[in-house]
Amino acid sequence: MTITRRHDPDRRGFASDNYAGIHPEILEAIAVANGGHQVSYGEDVYTEHLRQVFRGHFGDRAEAFPVFNGTGANVVALDAMSERWGSVIAAATAHINVDECGAPEKMGGLKLLTVETPDGKLTPDLIDTHAWGWGDQHRAQPLVVAITQATELGTCYTPEEIKAISGHCHDRGMKVFLDGSRLANAAATLNRPFREFTTDAGVDVLTFGGTKNGLLAGECIVVLNPDAAHGVMYLRKMSMQLASKMRFVSAQFEALLDGDLWLRNASHSNAMAQRLATAIRDLPGIQITQPVQANAVFAILPPEVTERLQKRFRFYTWNEHTGEVRWMCSFDTTEEDIDTFAAALREELGAGE
Amino acid sequence: MTITRRHDPDRRGFASDNYAGIHPEILEAIAVANGGHQVSYGEDVYTEHLRQVFRGHFGDRAEAFPVFNGTGANVVALDAMSERWGSVIAAATAHINVDECGAPEKMGGLKLLTVETPDGKLTPDLIDTHAWGWGDQHRAQPLVVAITQATELGTCYTPEEIKAISGHCHDRGMKVFLDGSRLANAAATLNRPFREFTTDAGVDVLTFGGTKNGLLAGECIVVLNPDAAHGVMYLRKMSMQLASKMRFVSAQFEALLDGDLWLRNASHSNAMAQRLATAIRDLPGIQITQPVQANAVFAILPPEVTERLQKRFRFYTWNEHTGEVRWMCSFDTTEEDIDTFAAALREELGAGE
Amino acid sequence: MTITRRHDPDRRGFASDNYAGIHPEILEAIAVANGGHQVSYGEDVYTEHLRQVFRGHFGDRAEAFPVFNGTGANVVALDAMSERWGSVIAAATAHINVDECGAPEKMGGLKLLTVETPDGKLTPDLIDTHAWGWGDQHRAQPLVVAITQATELGTCYTPEEIKAISGHCHDRGMKVFLDGSRLANAAATLNRPFREFTTDAGVDVLTFGGTKNGLLAGECIVVLNPDAAHGVMYLRKMSMQLASKMRFVSAQFEALLDGDLWLRNASHSNAMAQRLATAIRDLPGIQITQPVQANAVFAILPPEVTERLQKRFRFYTWNEHTGEVRWMCSFDTTEEDIDTFAAALREELGAGE
Amino acid sequence: MTITRRHDPDRRGFASDNYAGIHPEILEAIAVANGGHQVSYGEDVYTEHLRQVFRGHFGDRAEAFPVFNGTGANVVALDAMSERWGSVIAAATAHINVDECGAPEKMGGLKLLTVETPDGKLTPDLIDTHAWGWGDQHRAQPLVVAITQATELGTCYTPEEIKAISGHCHDRGMKVFLDGSRLANAAATLNRPFREFTTDAGVDVLTFGGTKNGLLAGECIVVLNPDAAHGVMYLRKMSMQLASKMRFVSAQFEALLDGDLWLRNASHSNAMAQRLATAIRDLPGIQITQPVQANAVFAILPPEVTERLQKRFRFYTWNEHTGEVRWMCSFDTTEEDIDTFAAALREELGAGE
Repeated sequence: MTITRRHDPDRRGFASDNYAGIHPEILEAIAVANGGHQVSYGEDVYTEHLRQVFRGHFGDRAEAFPVFNGTGANVVALDAMSERWGSVIAAATAHINVDECGAPEKMGGLKLLTVETPDGKLTPDLIDTHAWGWGDQHRAQPLVVAITQATELGTCYTPEEIKAISGHCHDRGMKVFLDGSRLANAAATLNRPFREFTTDAGVDVLTFGGTKNGLLAGECIVVLNPDAAHGVMYLRKMSMQLASKMRFVSAQFEALLDGDLWLRNASHSNAMAQRLATAIRDLPGIQITQPVQANAVFAILPPEVTERLQKRFRFYTWNEHTGEVRWMCSFDTTEEDIDTFAAALREELGAGE
Repeated sequence: MTITRRHDPDRRGFASDNYAGIHPEILEAIAVANGGHQVSYGEDVYTEHLRQVFRGHFGDRAEAFPVFNGTGANVVALDAMSERWGSVIAAATAHINVDECGAPEKMGGLKLLTVETPDGKLTPDLIDTHAWGWGDQHRAQPLVVAITQATELGTCYTPEEIKAISGHCHDRGMKVFLDGSRLANAAATLNRPFREFTTDAGVDVLTFGGTKNGLLAGECIVVLNPDAAHGVMYLRKMSMQLASKMRFVSAQFEALLDGDLWLRNASHSNAMAQRLATAIRDLPGIQITQPVQANAVFAILPPEVTERLQKRFRFYTWNEHTGEVRWMCSFDTTEEDIDTFAAALREELGAGE
Repeated sequence: MTITRRHDPDRRGFASDNYAGIHPEILEAIAVANGGHQVSYGEDVYTEHLRQVFRGHFGDRAEAFPVFNGTGANVVALDAMSERWGSVIAAATAHINVDECGAPEKMGGLKLLTVETPDGKLTPDLIDTHAWGWGDQHRAQPLVVAITQATELGTCYTPEEIKAISGHCHDRGMKVFLDGSRLANAAATLNRPFREFTTDAGVDVLTFGGTKNGLLAGECIVVLNPDAAHGVMYLRKMSMQLASKMRFVSAQFEALLDGDLWLRNASHSNAMAQRLATAIRDLPGIQITQPVQANAVFAILPPEVTERLQKRFRFYTWNEHTGEVRWMCSFDTTEEDIDTFAAALREELGAGE
Repeated sequence: MTITRRHDPDRRGFASDNYAGIHPEILEAIAVANGGHQVSYGEDVYTEHLRQVFRGHFGDRAEAFPVFNGTGANVVALDAMSERWGSVIAAATAHINVDECGAPEKMGGLKLLTVETPDGKLTPDLIDTHAWGWGDQHRAQPLVVAITQATELGTCYTPEEIKAISGHCHDRGMKVFLDGSRLANAAATLNRPFREFTTDAGVDVLTFGGTKNGLLAGECIVVLNPDAAHGVMYLRKMSMQLASKMRFVSAQFEALLDGDLWLRNASHSNAMAQRLATAIRDLPGIQITQPVQANAVFAILPPEVTERLQKRFRFYTWNEHTGEVRWMCSFDTTEEDIDTFAAALREELGAGE
């Protein structure tokens, strides 16, 4: 049988980093791990090795549990950190709140306590709007605080900000969860090793994103503080996140993390976002709304410009009311992509006239 | 970076069809679907085409929803078919009962009503041991009957047997779910098109297995009767089974199903099981316990023989009490694998003397 | 055996209307329903009659399902109105959000979408902050809007306000749920029959409170629009809200609702709140923060006054940050109770000097 | 308003002990606890005293949590003893399996592993059919064994039998739960204090039944081993089992348990069952199917006799296939009730001719 290519492999947009495909080195790693038989459900040699790779990045106590996707990773991790009667404090913009179809509540039985933020980032003060009522049987107990790094708004916490949150939470008996679906982008921006702003900053459990950084599919729950999570193994299976042929998830992560592919990919997509922001920042009629600290640019445009531009390039409107849009860059975004798009934007804004 | 092969690609065993890797044509399909950007979460051209492929196999009303794994497929499908107050009648040996860590109960909120069977197959009479009590508020209402084809014991239902079950269930207001993680093996054995023993036999919803037949990862919920399932799209997402880069799941399925790869793989693994059964059936001290109708051989061996044999080949003891073992064949099992194993078994049984 | 009274039956406070006991007519009704055998789980003659009583108040389509408590009533009703993938829009102050230990999320699998309000009341505009995204698989679907009447802040919706909400919701395919744990207080304030601001105003399902209006224990789910709720009977049982000796729950409700006891009790507790508000409104140093439209008075006091007063009378601080307190009146609050308390408040405020 | 009696207070049957009403001393206790204000949700003086009463019966470590009904008590207790990934081994006839509409699975997220028994009683051997697979991520982990005392078939465990089960379970890391909805009947039969066959026999947590022994409504979770249960307070609330006016639940239990009412009621209903069994045991055409060790008699009758008899007396057919029926006696069953019924049975069997 001849396998048919049904799409244009040279066409790219700015809708999402998960519109991109598989980085060639990742695909190669899958091929290398192929052939012969390997024990299923995580007892293979690739997964065994991967555990060491994660310890290298996150410290000797780190325990890695590969899963299929980000929603699954988040829900399993939060369940493992919480009790049935727990609640989770999160930014209103958190992926777990707005983009998971209620999976944390419906599958995990978790109540989310959400708070508005200017930039997608929690602070001790914002946390305190919900961090109270322990011992009150009428209140789902705040047991976990969830932050995202880089945030859903393309911003990054500094290591110091994360430390402040962790200290605040631990003082109150709460654990710190970090949704790291774009953790590599944050590391690239901060120019720090992962552990400086995770393990060493007091994060208890995180989810590490692979799919948005060049994997076919794969995320990983990383327990940094084993006292803070229980039953991950069972929760992963019962949450339908246990891959039978796990060697192929693990081999992808090995290719990403055993060398510097994670950093190359993340640095590149970050740089493309910077290139875009730089190119358009001073155009009349456009307002960049968030600091560009990862691979996303958020901006407010005139609606009619957005409309025309979306006919030429794929990207999402973030807020219908304000006219805010989001442009995501990915590992395969090229400088030419950016320059073409910036030119089009300039053109549609009438700025070139 | 050099990617390291960490395993012997020529070593195979008989533990499970998910110990095998990826069929080369499947891997090629992933590579072909790579490159460029595609809309995520299922709105890509590969998933669109796949829907047509499934309609070709299962009829014009069939709706296909690719997911990550079998447990996820089963739970989402059963949830979509049931109500919160429903229960599901299944064989005690059903995968949903014994191998999913309680996911149907814990994630789906489903009560399972299980019945012992001689061969993993339900019958109207066996179903009737639980099919009663509709309208009784104290009883989780039996709304769905779940069968597996081929069964977890390597047996197959005939189309007539499935029709009898469906008629019986529909007469009582119950729907029929089919766990088809090895549906291709059943089709190969029955030598019938899929729809003859599914759609045309009254099955309402099935899950179609890819992983055990050569995929990297991928299963598919196939709704045959759209009146029998609701909210699959939402349930898939909230059950953490929605792949962002779905094009790669769909491309795998296209490679499997658009031509005859599904049949080649399944026929081969079935044939290998037959070759094994034939080679060992008459050995003294061995008893084959189930009809060999798919890619598995179940047999009772003396425990000491099992113990010695498991040092040489990987396979599972099925029942510690009876000494029953399971040997699974896969798409990559070779005739030489079988012959070597049969010779070893003969040797360990002392049958060669 | 001599049964010991362990408390002072003449001591009352302003903490909550559920600190009060059982109205004598209710207790008498329990005694009348006692003796002999009656079919359990709701097939008794008292429950049968109660269904008629509720139809008298809410219209011929109304279906009444007695349960134990308010949290149970709310969760069962919302589950019956929603789908597994649904979300519920509610005021941030709603009891279902703040006082049920996450039961809607944890037991019902419902995601709550909450919005800040000035007075505990939703409006179409406030609803619209969350009422969007239907058909988007990433978003728990907004299927139900929940209002409370009288609200948790002691305010009441007018019939017109409820009609506006219902019309707005129905136009968008959403159902309207009303938490009526203090519905009688609202009816007394509005001086309208129940159905004018429920059934006739487009409410689909409500919960009717008995416990806070003089019952030992008992709430009732009332389905006003039978097309808007499914499986209440099963959901009630599986949600652990089906009383075996239901005749005693129903007999209490009959005593409350078959005559005018509901109105006498509610009017009285409302009047006591008015008496309190009138007595203290003009005291220096006190600020009444919400319209007094039911049986509660909310006010801001100097913290030291609150502290001294709470040593003499039981009541709750509502908001630690602002110093707001809540005083609840109940069916057994006396004019003397109010006058004594108002005098004490005046005294503590130093207003008498 | 005149309150209407709608039923015949002198009519009784043999359908269920929850068809009976409220024992007069219980109703008196409710009246005594009435009047004035008491802190709601369990911080009243009656509930405080009740905790001491339970410690008197079950030992100094016992912690009592009053709830509304048996299903709620069972689900909350099992949840508190288990983990999200746990399963519960129980007899197939257990109330939690057959009569709770799937609440343990649907509300508690518990998987039940059920086993057929001859008499409703588990044994170590029967437990062992499911007690395996710890550490296997594919298997919902068996963490709790649930027994019922007296059983749903009217039989009783001896203290020694319970000790054997507890020892067996504890050796394997499993906890022991006891559904004691008829624990008083068992105590009366065994003629032993409660603690001899509960606390001292190794039971970790039990639910104590009040409703079937003369209460209006009320059950109690009793944690005998505080290390074996966590978060009961929160689980009770989020499971919708926290009574606001808890004083009235507690006062009922005080009346039952602070003196000997529990024993008088249970001994009487047991004696009535014995009187019935004695009167009919030797009638031709009848076969008593279970030892009569509590307040139930199970027997097989000719179907036409059952049919005629059910026109005269209310009772349930237990098994349509075998013709087995159940006759329950309650605290208010009289000797005359029994003699009249036995005579009718004799008459319908034609045994009087």
